[in-house]
Amino acid sequence: MEGLEVLPVRGIGDVTAGDDLAELITRNAPWLRDGDVLIVTSKIVSKAEGRLVEVPADGPEREAARVRVLDSETRRVVARRGPTSIVQTHHGFVMAAAGIDASNVDKTHLVLLPVAPDDSARRLRADLATRGLHVGVIVSDTMGRAWRNGLTDVALGAAGIEPIRDHRGEIDPYGNELQLTQIAVIDELAAAGELVKGKCDQVPVAVVRGYPGAGTQDGPGATVLLRDAASDMFSLGTAEAHASGLRDAAALTDTTTDRPAPESSVQRAIELAGMTDAVDVPSPQTLRCTAPSSSPSALMRFGADVQRLRAALAAEGLASAVAYDESGATIAVSGAAAAVSGPSA
Amino acid sequence: MEGLEVLPVRGIGDVTAGDDLAELITRNAPWLRDGDVLIVTSKIVSKAEGRLVEVPADGPEREAARVRVLDSETRRVVARRGPTSIVQTHHGFVMAAAGIDASNVDKTHLVLLPVAPDDSARRLRADLATRGLHVGVIVSDTMGRAWRNGLTDVALGAAGIEPIRDHRGEIDPYGNELQLTQIAVIDELAAAGELVKGKCDQVPVAVVRGYPGAGTQDGPGATVLLRDAASDMFSLGTAEAHASGLRDAAALTDTTTDRPAPESSVQRAIELAGMTDAVDVPSPQTLRCTAPSSSPSALMRFGADVQRLRAALAAEGLASAVAYDESGATIAVSGAAAAVSGPSA
Repeated sequence: MEGLEVLPVRGIGDVTAGDDLAELITRNAPWLRDGDVLIVTSKIVSKAEGRLVEVPADGPEREAARVRVLDSETRRVVARRGPTSIVQTHHGFVMAAAGIDASNVDKTHLVLLPVAPDDSARRLRADLATRGLHVGVIVSDTMGRAWRNGLTDVALGAAGIEPIRDHRGEIDPYGNELQLTQIAVIDELAAAGELVKGKCDQVPVAVVRGYPGAGTQDGPGATVLLRDAASDMFSLGTAEAHASGLRDAAALTDTTTDRPAPESSVQRAIELAGMTDAVDVPSPQTLRCTAPSSSPSALMRFGADVQRLRAALAAEGLASAVAYDESGATIAVSGAAAAVSGPSA
Repeated sequence: MEGLEVLPVRGIGDVTAGDDLAELITRNAPWLRDGDVLIVTSKIVSKAEGRLVEVPADGPEREAARVRVLDSETRRVVARRGPTSIVQTHHGFVMAAAGIDASNVDKTHLVLLPVAPDDSARRLRADLATRGLHVGVIVSDTMGRAWRNGLTDVALGAAGIEPIRDHRGEIDPYGNELQLTQIAVIDELAAAGELVKGKCDQVPVAVVRGYPGAGTQDGPGATVLLRDAASDMFSLGTAEAHASGLRDAAALTDTTTDRPAPESSVQRAIELAGMTDAVDVPSPQTLRCTAPSSSPSALMRFGADVQRLRAALAAEGLASAVAYDESGATIAVSGAAAAVSGPSA
């Protein structure tokens, strides 16, 4: 590889519904070549596809309309804090405000993401191919991320470019097999493109020249970069997941599994609940809790403590089922309830 | 802006402790110019700085040593699943395995991150400046992220380059003031650099040419991109935050604040706990729960239900304090406990 060039495409100007992006781009970048990768800001794709909704220009009606649009673009809420809503869109992207944008559009419209950015990329690639130009196309947008301030551009859609460069199985010069090295190259290409785009000066397309292998076939698209919620260790905001733990504690049901409960987990739970003196542990699978007194308020308080213990067991990932009798409670404990593998909501 | 070039620096070869990176880089890239941005893989910075630890080449001793090294590099654990540990390092980076790397090093060593990557970048920039070359320097590493598959390179350290391009306050062509537009350009530059580096073919330095403003002063460094845990909506893994909610339910203490409890939150909590029939709500600040029967097991079960209700109130962000008497429990409810703003652990 001899290096890359990252080039802005100027002069595209305002894009409106029905515009032919292939025509606009080739007219303003007659220097495009086979193998180039076009990084196209999703906003002009959305505009060309007519993905705008009309909203009042200001006032509470505008805000109400914005909330309705956000709801309709949202598959599930991931995290909320103050005015910020991070949601998973119907596409599967996790983005602030579902990627809905009020910038670079007149005040009576909001711009939604393209319905299917991979399809948008494939269509544009095909339109360019009919003009004899065989390139890769990435539909990009600006996204926040966990843990780091600032935004970067990433790929929402891609065609004619392999989304991931996979180094797994390669051997380094020291004989080590590489791991953890699936590089999201389309996100890096989108980031590189952002560096030559402006937010206000209407450079909605950049070109990366010199990246090997682009333009030969559609490929799987940016969809392969979507991590599904089940395999995502950060599928919910911290506060939301914490609240879901509290809700699960409120809704605990009697559950047993056929897995044994590890003794160390059971002991940690008993200590956390402050029940060390009130519990006998004939086996890690059975806890016998004895009420300290028979006065009504003592019995109620004891029942609350048993419930605390069950929440502590759940925090350790353990299932429990309780039976009360005249003198106390017997808790059947078993291993690996759903609690630690993920929240219920 | 006329576009960027992204150029690989070849021939650097193996780097060992004490090597002069400025010498190695300028010897292999005599074509460097003022204003270039060097993207230097953190691994060669670590090696030059001697940030290696000796470990057994294989076997359980190697794994035990790896765990000890990980512990010593970890400020706090963010999320764990199976063999994957995502931690916050002492620097503040959230990375798998604290950025410790066993690739591109012989089998008896692990490579740690540089102690202070911003300082490393500043030193290299100063060393190059003494040679008359005024450039920006980014120390980069490969990182995973939430929500998206695949890794990208980001900046761990930076000097001579503004980390963030801030568009806030700018007005777009439609008269809208831009928001949410602080772009993490050093991460985008690191990503662009990765595109011309290889993982196995020893291209540990890339150069971005044409990015405006580089090389003039050190600037604040990549540290400004670190989001502190308190302002991070994803400071803990979902499962970990969920478990912390369950633990908080187990450890609930009597708490009151001087803020009122919203009636709708109180009603949701009562419904979630299944206590609609057992609770009178003389005011949203006071709940009277009446025990259904005076048998010991009924009183215990009732106490458990009161505890469920308190967990449900906590899930709504409400503080509670309970007093038991002969016939039931009175719960004082108040607003905005710590629970919803973040977990306790």
